[in-house]
Amino acid sequence: MEEKVLSIDSATNELIKKAKEDGVETIFDRKENMKPCPMGEKGICCRICAMGPCRITPKTPRGLCGATADVIVSRNFARMVAGGAAAHSDHGRDIAHVLHMASKDGNYKVTDEVKLMELAKRWKIETEDRDVYDIAHEVAEFALNEFGKPFGTLEFPPSLPEQREKVWKDLNVVPRSIDREVVTIMHSTHVGCTADADSMLNISMRTAISDGWGGSYIATELSDILFGTPVPRETEANLGVLEENQVNIILHGHEPSLSEMIVLAAEDPELLALAKEVGADGINLAGMCCTANEVTMRHGVKIAGNFAQQELAILTGAVEAVIVDVQCIFPALAPLADCYHTKFITTSPKARITGATHIEFDEEKALESAKQIVKEAIFNFKNRKKEKVFIPQTKSHAVVGYSTKAIINQLDKVVNSHIDIAGTVKPLADCITSGVLRGAAGIVGCNNPKVKHDYGHIEMIKELIKNDVIVVTTGCAAQAAAKAGLLSKDARKLAGKGLATVCELVDIPPVLHMGSCVDISRILELVGLVAKHLNVDISELPVVGAAPEWMSEKAVSIGTYVVASGIDTWLGVAPPVTGGPRVLEILTSEMENMVGAKFFVEPDPVKAAHQMIERIEQKRKGLEEKFENPEALAEA
Amino acid sequence: MEEKVLSIDSATNELIKKAKEDGVETIFDRKENMKPCPMGEKGICCRICAMGPCRITPKTPRGLCGATADVIVSRNFARMVAGGAAAHSDHGRDIAHVLHMASKDGNYKVTDEVKLMELAKRWKIETEDRDVYDIAHEVAEFALNEFGKPFGTLEFPPSLPEQREKVWKDLNVVPRSIDREVVTIMHSTHVGCTADADSMLNISMRTAISDGWGGSYIATELSDILFGTPVPRETEANLGVLEENQVNIILHGHEPSLSEMIVLAAEDPELLALAKEVGADGINLAGMCCTANEVTMRHGVKIAGNFAQQELAILTGAVEAVIVDVQCIFPALAPLADCYHTKFITTSPKARITGATHIEFDEEKALESAKQIVKEAIFNFKNRKKEKVFIPQTKSHAVVGYSTKAIINQLDKVVNSHIDIAGTVKPLADCITSGVLRGAAGIVGCNNPKVKHDYGHIEMIKELIKNDVIVVTTGCAAQAAAKAGLLSKDARKLAGKGLATVCELVDIPPVLHMGSCVDISRILELVGLVAKHLNVDISELPVVGAAPEWMSEKAVSIGTYVVASGIDTWLGVAPPVTGGPRVLEILTSEMENMVGAKFFVEPDPVKAAHQMIERIEQKRKGLEEKFENPEALAEA
Repeated sequence: MEEKVLSIDSATNELIKKAKEDGVETIFDRKENMKPCPMGEKGICCRICAMGPCRITPKTPRGLCGATADVIVSRNFARMVAGGAAAHSDHGRDIAHVLHMASKDGNYKVTDEVKLMELAKRWKIETEDRDVYDIAHEVAEFALNEFGKPFGTLEFPPSLPEQREKVWKDLNVVPRSIDREVVTIMHSTHVGCTADADSMLNISMRTAISDGWGGSYIATELSDILFGTPVPRETEANLGVLEENQVNIILHGHEPSLSEMIVLAAEDPELLALAKEVGADGINLAGMCCTANEVTMRHGVKIAGNFAQQELAILTGAVEAVIVDVQCIFPALAPLADCYHTKFITTSPKARITGATHIEFDEEKALESAKQIVKEAIFNFKNRKKEKVFIPQTKSHAVVGYSTKAIINQLDKVVNSHIDIAGTVKPLADCITSGVLRGAAGIVGCNNPKVKHDYGHIEMIKELIKNDVIVVTTGCAAQAAAKAGLLSKDARKLAGKGLATVCELVDIPPVLHMGSCVDISRILELVGLVAKHLNVDISELPVVGAAPEWMSEKAVSIGTYVVASGIDTWLGVAPPVTGGPRVLEILTSEMENMVGAKFFVEPDPVKAAHQMIERIEQKRKGLEEKFENPEALAEA
Repeated sequence: MEEKVLSIDSATNELIKKAKEDGVETIFDRKENMKPCPMGEKGICCRICAMGPCRITPKTPRGLCGATADVIVSRNFARMVAGGAAAHSDHGRDIAHVLHMASKDGNYKVTDEVKLMELAKRWKIETEDRDVYDIAHEVAEFALNEFGKPFGTLEFPPSLPEQREKVWKDLNVVPRSIDREVVTIMHSTHVGCTADADSMLNISMRTAISDGWGGSYIATELSDILFGTPVPRETEANLGVLEENQVNIILHGHEPSLSEMIVLAAEDPELLALAKEVGADGINLAGMCCTANEVTMRHGVKIAGNFAQQELAILTGAVEAVIVDVQCIFPALAPLADCYHTKFITTSPKARITGATHIEFDEEKALESAKQIVKEAIFNFKNRKKEKVFIPQTKSHAVVGYSTKAIINQLDKVVNSHIDIAGTVKPLADCITSGVLRGAAGIVGCNNPKVKHDYGHIEMIKELIKNDVIVVTTGCAAQAAAKAGLLSKDARKLAGKGLATVCELVDIPPVLHMGSCVDISRILELVGLVAKHLNVDISELPVVGAAPEWMSEKAVSIGTYVVASGIDTWLGVAPPVTGGPRVLEILTSEMENMVGAKFFVEPDPVKAAHQMIERIEQKRKGLEEKFENPEALAEA
């Protein structure tokens, strides 16, 4: 019988084969055996109280309390948003705490002072004649209060167009404090509370907005202040970045507060000497999942792979340690690491894993803590079993690190300084309105074994760039693009003529790496700035979003705030809402009347790409009409 | 075929019969048809990401990410705690906001100034020469900051024994801000975070403590300040309290901010006149679920029934309006109300229900808002269909309103003022240490159709009081007790000799109504004060808790904080954790080593009562030994 090809990525397929030879299990095996619960997939199973769990069937159209399918589906959806918003926002909070402990002589320092001052000004924090760290601490406190202030509403960044804020005010979805929005969902979904799909989705939007324009936005801004706003850097991606003769360390998880210190520790002369002592040529860091994005865009650290590949890194037999913090870490890594010499090291009290070596990362002694962890990896080098080592020789070149500021810097290359001012998104807006670029797409999200690994991401991206749609990407989608060579400037040969020309003139790849999942806030920022430049609402721009292989609750929160921000969003995997006709109707149709955008579900990435292009063309037409009719523009 | 008897309460059985005659459906019918999901009941179904839903079976012992049964079960359990803690705490937050808007001439006033001053003093808020409302607003702000302060830990009330606080510090379960703890659970349970049952339950304890000693405690204290600390009052309970010739209004839900205003509105001469105009003799308010507890203990408003009876009230055909706010409201009330003349009125943006009449309650114009709602009921009187009316002639006498302060006042009756000072829990402590009372039990919680209605509560309570265990009760358990006549002073004839004597001397019933579910904080307060008086930890007292018919996530949070507070807790319905052997082991065994108490699951209420008495005797023995050995006491 022919082997089923599970990934479009050869390194992945090679290691799946090795797993079989080694007699160990991976997610690809578990996927074969697991039959997803059909009730759960439709969202019509309710476990919110202990009278059930109730399941909606033709014979039982209501749960014991009387909840309909739509009530159950909408509550389950809302709780996914709450889980996702909580994860992102708590990440933002942690970064704010780290900024609060930053000091001139400490491990954590202010790196982007300009961004700090911008934020301080925005938040009306006195900057004149003050120590940078005093300002930083006050900025951190302001940020922390966004999570828990008892009165008022979220401070929106200046990239949010007024038109959009008005839409939200009218819908009553302007968030209060971030934590409170998560708690409100948990309360409203409690037995005997919200039992109305429309209301439940309205509440979900508010919480999701508190993530995208609140928790995630704060995470990105404060990370940039602490660790530097990303600029374009060259790197390589895929498991081929592991080095035969070095101590290989996989950094996996999300929060840069840990990974930045590990990067520092791995450059420490004492530890490099120690690595030599144990017989290694050096210390080779490689990232996985969003931590990969964080460290690659600030240090060029190589990318080992994305979500579905985390076990495969261990399977190479060449990894001394997998160091993780929070989110998207397989509990399966613990028993798998036991089959190899790899040390699986958890570091966060928020994500302890049975069977892992837990070394709690202490931000107060961050570098010391990081060194201790790296030492564990170095000492483990001697345990590597040569006969078990197999590193696939696959890796791709990529350029990463396109923060909004970096994009604007690139755009400045085509600004005619006699006519225009530099430092704005005008060239991008001009490309879009002129039609050199038809539009832009944000391709983001996870891997999900319901989709052939990386296939959803790559086919969609290729189709879009071929059709002159510039792509920005984050998360595991970005890593898929990196591995497929699409983040390389060479990839412009795959782009349509308009996009290829822009890439050449501006010196960028056709697919721009904008960071980790919380950095979707960068996409919001960029899109918001373009909308403001054109004096239109975000929903009027020829801009679309997609998560072809999404799986996490964070993706549900992201999808919801992206749509609420006015950007149509394509999902490659159906969310568990198909059992709720009203919920489905709202998400895939009526939201357009509310926020000017909606969800689309389309498993075929190429079909989805064409739907996206169609929508882009509709929006282009709308914009053209608007610009031809200046009165309408003035009204906007 | 003989009819199955579904309740021990005759009014309930009569109305279940009427439902059949009227051809309408109730929870008792839905229960017959619904087959609870066996996987969900064991807790081994995971819907936290979109790769599944995964279900643990012998063939699939791990979810796609590698999560084991214990990981899945513990995450699901933690999310139940988060849901429950969120609901309670958000209730507390709302009351704090109401206190913040209280004013001398407003609808909301400070009623218990003494309690306000006590709290202000505790929170180090200046009281000297200040306006009461300035103090109240600062107290409210302090309370609100407990939900969202970025630094520090929860302010514990003085009723918490030092010993207990130390246990929590050692276990690292001292909560930070309340909302943050809910958010931490939502983050830690996100895909790829906590995958360790021990850690997950530790985090759950911290969140639950933030509910019991935080959100709920604040809800109770601020409610008392606003609406008065309860004192013993006479009332009646069961659906027989509905009046044939009056406008009957059912107040159902939880937050007294609404129900207090409805009580005021129903006493308004203009509205009373309006009621006469429409042909009614008056306006008859009756409470349901925790709102019933709130208004009965502060105003003697009659109790219509508990959770499982909410549909039955409508079925009487004699209810003009069911007015609800949040929590424990059946969505089924909407279609059911359509079959009768009853108006089903939702009032909270946090709990809109499809098919209900939504009149948003505006706290800023609270009384006006309440009057508008009551008018809807009055105008609806004319639509009552006489031929559809059936009010069961069942009701019981009850004494309600035993706040801690009220209990201490009662205890003062037996204080010999020549020897002892008044105003303390000493007489209660003396009764317990001397053995006149063997101990105390808190019987709380919901109705759950998995248990014959009220049977679990009543059989357990009877068995306990017969054995000289004094019972305190809240929530739907309290209403069951009220309906069964156990809150009447006459009920002492059912008590053992010791308890009966105490009841006579102190002039109390053997079962003390302490309020709504958030008022379990009153039980904590009382138990804490007794422990402090004896200079022991709570876990050393012969005190137990039980939720014989629990169903809500709030009950899971309550159970967790009660056990974490050192009180053994019996559950009459197994929580969805039986599929996680490690989780089960921790909850029902190892927690004892951590916090000196654990969970017991026993569906038979009489058996459970005897287990409780056995534990009480063990604790009594421990206390005796301690008091015989003063050195050990000194160490404590």
